[in-house]
Amino acid sequence: MKSAFLKDFGEKKLIRRIKQSVKCNQSVLKGIGDDTAVLKLNRTHYLLYTSDMLLEGLHFRRKDNPRDIGHKALACSLSDIASMGGLPCYGLISLGLPRRLKVNYLDRIYEGILSLASEFSVKIVGGDIIRSNKIIIDICLIGQVEKKNLILRSNAKAGDIIFVTGRLGGSLKSKKHLRFTPRIKQARYLVKNHRINSMIDISDGLASDLWEIAKQSKKGAVIYESALPFSDYAASLDNCLYDGEDFELLFTLSAKEARRLIRKKGSFFYPIGEITGRKFEITIYDREGKSRKLDLKGFKHF
Amino acid sequence: MKSAFLKDFGEKKLIRRIKQSVKCNQSVLKGIGDDTAVLKLNRTHYLLYTSDMLLEGLHFRRKDNPRDIGHKALACSLSDIASMGGLPCYGLISLGLPRRLKVNYLDRIYEGILSLASEFSVKIVGGDIIRSNKIIIDICLIGQVEKKNLILRSNAKAGDIIFVTGRLGGSLKSKKHLRFTPRIKQARYLVKNHRINSMIDISDGLASDLWEIAKQSKKGAVIYESALPFSDYAASLDNCLYDGEDFELLFTLSAKEARRLIRKKGSFFYPIGEITGRKFEITIYDREGKSRKLDLKGFKHF
Repeated sequence: MKSAFLKDFGEKKLIRRIKQSVKCNQSVLKGIGDDTAVLKLNRTHYLLYTSDMLLEGLHFRRKDNPRDIGHKALACSLSDIASMGGLPCYGLISLGLPRRLKVNYLDRIYEGILSLASEFSVKIVGGDIIRSNKIIIDICLIGQVEKKNLILRSNAKAGDIIFVTGRLGGSLKSKKHLRFTPRIKQARYLVKNHRINSMIDISDGLASDLWEIAKQSKKGAVIYESALPFSDYAASLDNCLYDGEDFELLFTLSAKEARRLIRKKGSFFYPIGEITGRKFEITIYDREGKSRKLDLKGFKHF
Repeated sequence: MKSAFLKDFGEKKLIRRIKQSVKCNQSVLKGIGDDTAVLKLNRTHYLLYTSDMLLEGLHFRRKDNPRDIGHKALACSLSDIASMGGLPCYGLISLGLPRRLKVNYLDRIYEGILSLASEFSVKIVGGDIIRSNKIIIDICLIGQVEKKNLILRSNAKAGDIIFVTGRLGGSLKSKKHLRFTPRIKQARYLVKNHRINSMIDISDGLASDLWEIAKQSKKGAVIYESALPFSDYAASLDNCLYDGEDFELLFTLSAKEARRLIRKKGSFFYPIGEITGRKFEITIYDREGKSRKLDLKGFKHF
């Protein structure tokens, strides 16, 4: 086992491995394993702490619009804060940059970062710059959330209705993966007006992130193909289920709360299924009403 | 200018450029430009917030001991916290890892990180893992410091005595750059027992980091070759002045405070010169007592 290569491990298995070797204490409410660490801050608020690393060739290409690249780098971290119901505050930007990159290109990366930072009142307070062959952008964010508004992925209840905040699939083709708006506003609306039981952002694909909620909550789920909001770029059901980087929120709340949510005019939240008590089992019903167990193949980090 | 390459810019020029485009507000005491951001936390403490990115081939090699690599990655960020007089609290680790890396190698990187984290009571609370051809380690730290104990690089006074916490030069040859102990304990001793006016960690070389203190404080400095603590691996004066990655602290305090510091038995602080009012001028006296203006060639990031 000791001589295995990382490619034989999934990201989640790696994280589990790391988690075992790290001990945490009282002041850490959620540590390794969630996208965002939750730390005690004061009597009323938790501090949220998260980072996302983007690499040229993997998360973007050199020929993409550098403004979009900067936008995406910050948006990914903002999406992590959104998934906890929180508000972002401070950002650090670590950059790896090729020596032969044009200064203008870097300026436009920063424009993308700073214009999004300004939209969500994030203060960029520092970071690090090194040289590297490929562009690396790692953005670390500090955010906060009122204690009563913190949402975890591990608290889904049997009978909860499952919702998503937007249409899914084909985000690479549509370039949504570069230009998405992190769902901070939707998340804040939800935690302030509804009793949300669990939430996660869809970075690895609907199937994979729903599985994450089910697993962490020790529950199961049923979803309905006919209810899934296909994006115009989702050519097949597989695109809708398995494409990564949509960065919509996936959340669950009781049937009663769900009715309140749906009744509101102009709601852009899509109900797609429900949480069940059948542990670790995710079922999908097709348009003919036939059910099958959902494959879990989502995005592979390694 | 817009079409210039990054290689034609120094890191400091790049940071200045970025700083101009970022607006900060009241809650940010120090933002871009210092190694560590200083944010308001509560009535008695500031929050410190810093990140350091290490890249294979630049800061370490694949064949280095992976335990040392992990150690260095955390130690670099700890050194930033030390330079502000603070204590580290929480860390996030973003990793880029080759798919063909051995799991055992990663385990040993973590051993290096976690054993140092434990020594300085840092809780590792999360991070991100992506695949990349070269190993990337970006560690982001949250720390804190009592308001009265915060030290900046920009507050040196004319007449201050300049000290370093250890011997300088040849840290690549001696592997000190991989195995150094971040000077948290020394920094805490200093801020608790002495009135320190300015401090920085020597990452880019004595000349470069002393210049940083002089520039930020709008002062000058005089140093004495005969007083410089050469490491056993410093083959020449140039090694002592310009080699990077020693991660000793460079600090200044009034002559009166300096006498108190030196009088203590077993002091490992080396006085090397003094701050002057001659703005932006750094002079070095050689062993014959001849003076010359100090060249500023330190470590180039680009």
